[in-house]
Amino acid sequence: MYKGLLIVISGPSGAGKGTIYGKVLEKLPEIKKSVSVTTRQPRQGEIDGVHYHFKTEEQYNRMIANGEFLETAAVYKNYYGTPKAPVFEMLEAGNDVMFEIDNYGSRQIKAKYPDAVTIYVMTPSFAELKRRLTARGTESEDSLKTRLGNAGRELSEYKNFDYFIVNDDADAAAEKVVDIIRAEKCRMYRNEQCVKSLLSEHNSSK
Amino acid sequence: MYKGLLIVISGPSGAGKGTIYGKVLEKLPEIKKSVSVTTRQPRQGEIDGVHYHFKTEEQYNRMIANGEFLETAAVYKNYYGTPKAPVFEMLEAGNDVMFEIDNYGSRQIKAKYPDAVTIYVMTPSFAELKRRLTARGTESEDSLKTRLGNAGRELSEYKNFDYFIVNDDADAAAEKVVDIIRAEKCRMYRNEQCVKSLLSEHNSSK
Repeated sequence: MYKGLLIVISGPSGAGKGTIYGKVLEKLPEIKKSVSVTTRQPRQGEIDGVHYHFKTEEQYNRMIANGEFLETAAVYKNYYGTPKAPVFEMLEAGNDVMFEIDNYGSRQIKAKYPDAVTIYVMTPSFAELKRRLTARGTESEDSLKTRLGNAGRELSEYKNFDYFIVNDDADAAAEKVVDIIRAEKCRMYRNEQCVKSLLSEHNSSK
Repeated sequence: MYKGLLIVISGPSGAGKGTIYGKVLEKLPEIKKSVSVTTRQPRQGEIDGVHYHFKTEEQYNRMIANGEFLETAAVYKNYYGTPKAPVFEMLEAGNDVMFEIDNYGSRQIKAKYPDAVTIYVMTPSFAELKRRLTARGTESEDSLKTRLGNAGRELSEYKNFDYFIVNDDADAAAEKVVDIIRAEKCRMYRNEQCVKSLLSEHNSSK
């Protein structure tokens, strides 16, 4: 367990995890983000090492083989992954690191770093999730059906997550994430060093 | 596990748990307190059932024998205890209930209701604890020594507590208690009912 906190915000497409993630970063700008590795081509204006670490498929596969990822996924024939080393370095230095990631990514992270604090964000109802996805205007009838089906399957695995936030208001939901981060820092097992130095002060003054 | 949250604020004499408790109640006035049972005589102006439930020693002993207490302790030949039934009724109705209580009381409560959220408050150092106790002007040299010794023994049992707060500023410490209460309400296992009704909405719409 490192000094910093690894926070994962997850939830189905349409639940608003990206918006909440952004609002939490506004409230707690000291939280670090991680730069993902990808095999896709850089888009106009994207800088290697800033927006992504761009790698060839061969380089990416080598990283997988070397166990260098906290999580990795294929999206439309490109790979995307979170490199372990820079995240652990930030945590070791006492920085908090936060991810906005899907259910699969979250499970991989929790498996590799059980001390991660995982938060699942969901709309107040599936009807509302459908409404939000439809309002995007980008989802075909089929893709909408798939997304809702995935959301149901994901939610049935709710026990993989430590916290649950109903996003009926993005500001209130972001405030809850901040509460969770602050509370987690007070967890007794994260403060053992502090308690032990108090006890050694006490014992040396006896 | 009841719907409401049972919160216990503990810590050695002088750490400021009473002040923090008061400040948390100001911030979250909806939190309920419990009325203790005691065998001591009512003081001027104290109303039975409001300040305390006043009982004879025989009545008190019967309550102990019947397992009616969440916790009980003897203080200067009088008994003080927290009756279980009214606390569980408040929790069942969805109210949060908060206690400010010593280490022994906290352990009894946690044993009888493991879902209690227990918070240990401590000064930034034992030197500061000594300073605060001395500043009261009411502690003899002997009683000061006893209190500091007790504080050290208590702190060595820190693993009995879920959370740890260093009270270097009472307002900041109270804010942390509020964060903990809000975060605990988002814990996944406290939201299973909500998740299950979402899942049943999803399944019925298939």
